[in-house]
Amino acid sequence: MPATPTPGVALEANGAHPPHPGLAAKAKKEATRKRFEGAFATIRSELLGHFSTHGMPPDAVDWYSRVLDYNVPGGKLNRGISVIDTAQILKGRALTDEEYMQAAVLGWGIEFMQAFFLVSDDLMDSSVTRRGQPCWYRQPDVGTIAVNDALLLEGAMYQMMRKHFRGEPYYTDLMDLFHEVSYETEMGQLVDLITAPETKVDLSKFSLERHSLIVIYKTAFYSFYLPVACAMLICGIPMFTPSPSSSDPSDDLTDPYKTALEILLPLGEYFQIQDDFLDFSAPPEILGKIGTDIIDNKCSWCINTALSLATPAQRAILDTNYGKKDPECERRVKKVFEEVGVRQEYEEYEKDVYERLCKLIAEVPEGGVQNGGVKREVFTSFLEKIYKRQK
Amino acid sequence: MPATPTPGVALEANGAHPPHPGLAAKAKKEATRKRFEGAFATIRSELLGHFSTHGMPPDAVDWYSRVLDYNVPGGKLNRGISVIDTAQILKGRALTDEEYMQAAVLGWGIEFMQAFFLVSDDLMDSSVTRRGQPCWYRQPDVGTIAVNDALLLEGAMYQMMRKHFRGEPYYTDLMDLFHEVSYETEMGQLVDLITAPETKVDLSKFSLERHSLIVIYKTAFYSFYLPVACAMLICGIPMFTPSPSSSDPSDDLTDPYKTALEILLPLGEYFQIQDDFLDFSAPPEILGKIGTDIIDNKCSWCINTALSLATPAQRAILDTNYGKKDPECERRVKKVFEEVGVRQEYEEYEKDVYERLCKLIAEVPEGGVQNGGVKREVFTSFLEKIYKRQK
Repeated sequence: MPATPTPGVALEANGAHPPHPGLAAKAKKEATRKRFEGAFATIRSELLGHFSTHGMPPDAVDWYSRVLDYNVPGGKLNRGISVIDTAQILKGRALTDEEYMQAAVLGWGIEFMQAFFLVSDDLMDSSVTRRGQPCWYRQPDVGTIAVNDALLLEGAMYQMMRKHFRGEPYYTDLMDLFHEVSYETEMGQLVDLITAPETKVDLSKFSLERHSLIVIYKTAFYSFYLPVACAMLICGIPMFTPSPSSSDPSDDLTDPYKTALEILLPLGEYFQIQDDFLDFSAPPEILGKIGTDIIDNKCSWCINTALSLATPAQRAILDTNYGKKDPECERRVKKVFEEVGVRQEYEEYEKDVYERLCKLIAEVPEGGVQNGGVKREVFTSFLEKIYKRQK
Repeated sequence: MPATPTPGVALEANGAHPPHPGLAAKAKKEATRKRFEGAFATIRSELLGHFSTHGMPPDAVDWYSRVLDYNVPGGKLNRGISVIDTAQILKGRALTDEEYMQAAVLGWGIEFMQAFFLVSDDLMDSSVTRRGQPCWYRQPDVGTIAVNDALLLEGAMYQMMRKHFRGEPYYTDLMDLFHEVSYETEMGQLVDLITAPETKVDLSKFSLERHSLIVIYKTAFYSFYLPVACAMLICGIPMFTPSPSSSDPSDDLTDPYKTALEILLPLGEYFQIQDDFLDFSAPPEILGKIGTDIIDNKCSWCINTALSLATPAQRAILDTNYGKKDPECERRVKKVFEEVGVRQEYEEYEKDVYERLCKLIAEVPEGGVQNGGVKREVFTSFLEKIYKRQK
């Protein structure tokens, strides 16, 4: 078994340092984003064109274009761009224009899926803002029409994939992949909704185990596994499809998609735990928003960790004050978080998970996809972006 | 061109009369329904099993089973059973057990799609009851969680098709079909929502043309075309899939799916117009519910017909009284409907559309699927169920 890489070493995997690393990296990131946004312009006009030629009247086309522009392109685009980055790593070279467009369509497919889930989750959670603007359902003429708008975003995702991939040998695998990941995300959302309903606080339903289940299903599948699996498909890595009569496919240790899943799910869990921790701990001026997990009764890693460590007296404070729309209650909860040592727990968790992930990555077979191998850089590049992030 | 069949002749297509036609038909219908419900029991336990093995906790499995039982099986099941009826007509014989299960899975797939749309539409429309019970979102612990429940019903539809059809040569066509029909239904729902918002009455947005667009997209694709297309697929009728670079596929006159579409869309429009008319005209004790289209500001065929015939004075009455939650306003609207002659208009429409549909059916090529042919009985059996129905 190869030695565990020293933390930090994996982060240098991209080669020599540029003269002004910060600035050059920023400019490169900006250019990457600009090019990716260019692909959105194409996809957007294809979708609106399809809508019009389907006989939809001008007011419906206008509405649809507002749905797209308000909800799809304004995020960080990490998920979408990671399809392109991963495809480049797998190919070991820059993508041709045609390859770029394929990766971009799937990247935007994931961003459409994200928009579809965020529009409906915000309505279910009665959220107020998203990406620095009012949530879509809170626009004056929208309201619950947002539900159908979310469905249209999902439908658009399949429409764009049909247009760009219908003839590809992996088209059916792509459909199955998006279906499965959507279903898994909806399962995660269900568990989240019944564990932490917006209105009724009951911390006895919470646990770190349940938190893990929620974040893996609700976030990790679509945010981490899906982009990598998309890139693997367009790079020609075959997907093992079990026949319904075969024995348990999870026994097949040589499936590169299974290799990817086994690293990307804990990686996604780490990402979300970090997100939960930053919501509690990061200064708003660095985070870019004010954390509301405590007042929103979120089943966050912080409350679950605090519950696992609290004395009966601290537990009583949490029960009384968690999920209340009152800054004084929030302050009392935060005080318990500090007392039980949530910060130290997080530091320890981050150190452990980083080591665990490095070890998992180091164990990925070198011998190509036949042995379940995937280039390790695929995973280190994700880990690099996440490890010790401040926002 | 063959002569137009005499109205009524098509209705006898199923062969000799049984001794007690009413009773025997009723018993047969009951047996058909029972067998179809048996297939639901199987599908339900497969879905719940899959949910459990995916690591979902017992409270999530319980919730999911409540979602399924409350929303999927309680309807008339016409759409689902029509897959089986159509497959039987296409095969020209009773189905084997295996063929039956395939048809039933797709039939239930359509019933799941219906449940998915009804759960979300009821929430968007603030509807009160559905199938004689409170709408799902109105259950005390549900509320907007119904949005995710609707998504799970959609996800279940793809999960059950993946389980039962993954190895079939038409699996990809099946996925495309469900995607396209879903997207079309969502387009129809969008036009409906922006034409007749729940709260703001503006009859200037209404027109018979818009009504036609709404009902074809929102109802006819999934209720009429989808069951027939499903049956055609499992009976081995190949679907013409245009390559993205080919010229307009609608020019291909020999596609049997296009033949089906061209009859089933106007047939579905007829069904919905009839539904709209019954909401206004049928006695509640026969209809089984009290019509609420007028007080709910629905973009119904009746209001659109009335608008097209009203004098300025009658129009003013409609503008003032339509969509108001007041029985007196509803009475005034109904009075205008009677005055302008909505009943006579409907009678004329029904006569015309019946003749038009019979003519379209008579024009279906006899020479097999290569010439775009589909057995005419597929269409007459639908028309027979709909023509002059009272509820």
